[in-house]
Amino acid sequence: MKNLSLTILILISFNSFAQVDIVKEDSIAIKKFYNTSLLEGKSYAWLDHLSNQIGARLSGSLNAQKAVEWTEKELKAIGLDKVWLQSVMVPKWTRGVTEFAYIETEPGKSTNVPICALGGSVPTPIGGIKASIIEVQNFEDLRELGTSGVEGKIVFFNRPMQADLINTFEAYGGCVDQRYSGAAEAAKFGAVGVLVRSMNLRLDDFPHTGAMSYGNLTNIEKIPAAAISTNGANLLSSMLKLNPKIKFLMNMNCRSWKDVESFNVIGEITGTEFPKEYMVVGGHLDSWDLGDGSHDDGAGVVQSMEVLRLFKETGYKPKRSIRVVLFMNEENGLRGGKKYAKAAQNKGENHVFALESDAGGFTPRGFSFDCSDQNISQVHSWKPLFEPYLIHYFVKGGSGADIGPLKKEGMVLAGLRPDSQRYFDYHHAKNDIFDAINKRELELGAATMTSLVYLFDKYGVK
Amino acid sequence: MKNLSLTILILISFNSFAQVDIVKEDSIAIKKFYNTSLLEGKSYAWLDHLSNQIGARLSGSLNAQKAVEWTEKELKAIGLDKVWLQSVMVPKWTRGVTEFAYIETEPGKSTNVPICALGGSVPTPIGGIKASIIEVQNFEDLRELGTSGVEGKIVFFNRPMQADLINTFEAYGGCVDQRYSGAAEAAKFGAVGVLVRSMNLRLDDFPHTGAMSYGNLTNIEKIPAAAISTNGANLLSSMLKLNPKIKFLMNMNCRSWKDVESFNVIGEITGTEFPKEYMVVGGHLDSWDLGDGSHDDGAGVVQSMEVLRLFKETGYKPKRSIRVVLFMNEENGLRGGKKYAKAAQNKGENHVFALESDAGGFTPRGFSFDCSDQNISQVHSWKPLFEPYLIHYFVKGGSGADIGPLKKEGMVLAGLRPDSQRYFDYHHAKNDIFDAINKRELELGAATMTSLVYLFDKYGVK
Repeated sequence: MKNLSLTILILISFNSFAQVDIVKEDSIAIKKFYNTSLLEGKSYAWLDHLSNQIGARLSGSLNAQKAVEWTEKELKAIGLDKVWLQSVMVPKWTRGVTEFAYIETEPGKSTNVPICALGGSVPTPIGGIKASIIEVQNFEDLRELGTSGVEGKIVFFNRPMQADLINTFEAYGGCVDQRYSGAAEAAKFGAVGVLVRSMNLRLDDFPHTGAMSYGNLTNIEKIPAAAISTNGANLLSSMLKLNPKIKFLMNMNCRSWKDVESFNVIGEITGTEFPKEYMVVGGHLDSWDLGDGSHDDGAGVVQSMEVLRLFKETGYKPKRSIRVVLFMNEENGLRGGKKYAKAAQNKGENHVFALESDAGGFTPRGFSFDCSDQNISQVHSWKPLFEPYLIHYFVKGGSGADIGPLKKEGMVLAGLRPDSQRYFDYHHAKNDIFDAINKRELELGAATMTSLVYLFDKYGVK
Repeated sequence: MKNLSLTILILISFNSFAQVDIVKEDSIAIKKFYNTSLLEGKSYAWLDHLSNQIGARLSGSLNAQKAVEWTEKELKAIGLDKVWLQSVMVPKWTRGVTEFAYIETEPGKSTNVPICALGGSVPTPIGGIKASIIEVQNFEDLRELGTSGVEGKIVFFNRPMQADLINTFEAYGGCVDQRYSGAAEAAKFGAVGVLVRSMNLRLDDFPHTGAMSYGNLTNIEKIPAAAISTNGANLLSSMLKLNPKIKFLMNMNCRSWKDVESFNVIGEITGTEFPKEYMVVGGHLDSWDLGDGSHDDGAGVVQSMEVLRLFKETGYKPKRSIRVVLFMNEENGLRGGKKYAKAAQNKGENHVFALESDAGGFTPRGFSFDCSDQNISQVHSWKPLFEPYLIHYFVKGGSGADIGPLKKEGMVLAGLRPDSQRYFDYHHAKNDIFDAINKRELELGAATMTSLVYLFDKYGVK
């Protein structure tokens, strides 16, 4: 076993020798990206402004518009070849006054618990809904209970994220159906409201909002849906075990409005050799409304801006046209991503590559790729270039929601993969704020993205 | 190039097939360690107690003694084969009342800046020292200034940590001479005090303490030495540029006392096949006095305890005797590490392996090893087993301060290497507290350590 390993090591070393010239030039370029990002980066100061001077920027809000105008101005200041806004109609939903909720063990005896409306939920009647509560783990439980077990009650979805999964996004994927479709499913059996355990691996007091859908329910069939903090969920579950007859009150006055106009913000460095081949790097400019969206996805926004700035700053002139796209409305509609792809298709623009950063501003570990096996081996041949920066993760998998609609044969879609352990501590919650960002981790992410874009620009998508 | 890469990939896959039986058994065992740590781990609850119920535990303090007694009790509760205390005399130094310092531009006009005494410093006279200040970057600057430039002044060492180094411990290594030897060097030229820029890559208001040495200065030659926060250092440097005549006042009433008795805390699972071969896993129980030492090194303490608990919990019976050693006095003396090694030598105990966790409780990335090339390739053959847990870093390098004295031919010394980006944000400062710990990251570290100990126990040090 050991000898075979050694043979492989030797072969790998030999392989590295063969690459030596390419590696040298590329490793110098990549080192420059990292050094510039870490020593003279702008991503952290940009995020400080976006998070602390603008703040939460839910689609259709005043802050979202401020973010559009400010990022447009900043992209112009970098000296890109073109900067423009792309109009897109987005949903507008407002939370209204802060929600409240309590568990009532008997009239006059109650315990407050932290909840927040899920994005897109209808409000409760004024004064709230008070009803019995029934706990389920999944839709199967719900079907087993049937109308007789559910009617007139608030359904409490309490399946926790699976802590033994190393990639926390997998744990999220295994739970988020409760949040996204819980209300639509529960309403079918006559539930009057839905409460969902927050998508959070920590035990704490922050409820986590997020998108939901009523499927094809009519307006009159829609029921209010809220997230409850993980501590609140555990408390409620314990109390239900002691006394299944307890009641729950939830009060929310959120509201949906008519669609409003908003914008994707786009900047471009036009390619020197293949200007009609487009490479996109982006994140989404909108955020949820509870924190300031520093990790989701302020980080991705400023890192994407920084990719183009690092090219300018280090004097690298890309062969292909590199666009930064700050997508509007990823969180509750994906309208920006769809619009950008549609417009690109209409104009016959040949997009060859797209990279999204939308997994938090934590230490980058690598990328996941939605592309051919050939492109994956192309990426694997670059691994030694990333090694000095401890970037080691290059796998097939998802890329990013906003760039998904661009997908076509022969194209490379990629997603930055930062360390995921802390991400769901903050995701869609009040504590997703600038203080949760580490400057170096953010900057390393920007440099890592820049390096991948550089390599695909230089060598092309084979 | 691509074809060669493919050949290598195929060979690696083939290699994996050859290992399939071993891999299967080991991967099941390792998965069990990770699952148990993440789902039913004790490390986080232990650290909560150590940090929040006991707190800072500088050598010779009451808290250090509490930590000894409590960890001894907890190790006994795990049901180890033996648990005992190893007596060791340690230095005792106390900070006294909180330090204060200000920059004086003219009499009556001053600006406070955050400082803290370095560990082991002599105090200032009562009321403090007020003197002119001279900024230097290193000892060469100091020598160039000579006695005429330094005498009667406070020397301000202001060389920042190098932000473009990816491994922040390298950046620390490049700066820490200022803190450790600054006072001894400056005193030679007649300085009356020393101020050192905190070893911190962030700009913030926390001064970072740490060990210093007066070398062979006599008591009368010793001068007080303090760390200044990075924001304070930048402010002071700017003000000095505007007006080199400004004065600095620093007041500290720290004090050194006679050595006192303390203890290493040791627990053992006796080996089933080779009980006379010892494998050590450890961290240091003492901490600095400003925060509660959660990252440095509460994390290492509870992770090391968790290694033995995971063996018990999962039913793995090690062939060799596995010891957890909670070393006393790493921070300002290393007496515990030296004592343990000396005692082992005196008793003729054959130590074959030692692993230390003393680099923070962040997401584990791998290990660095102080061992032979043969042992390194032994470790490399285990890489596939670690891949599912994103553990990818296995390099030659340092291990840990406490286990260093055990070093001998044929032995493997290893250090857990967590992600290093945030470590120096907290290191030796008031913000190194339990809230800066992420439960999952801590637990992943414990499981990663357990897996390495398991593999070396099972296969032996070849």
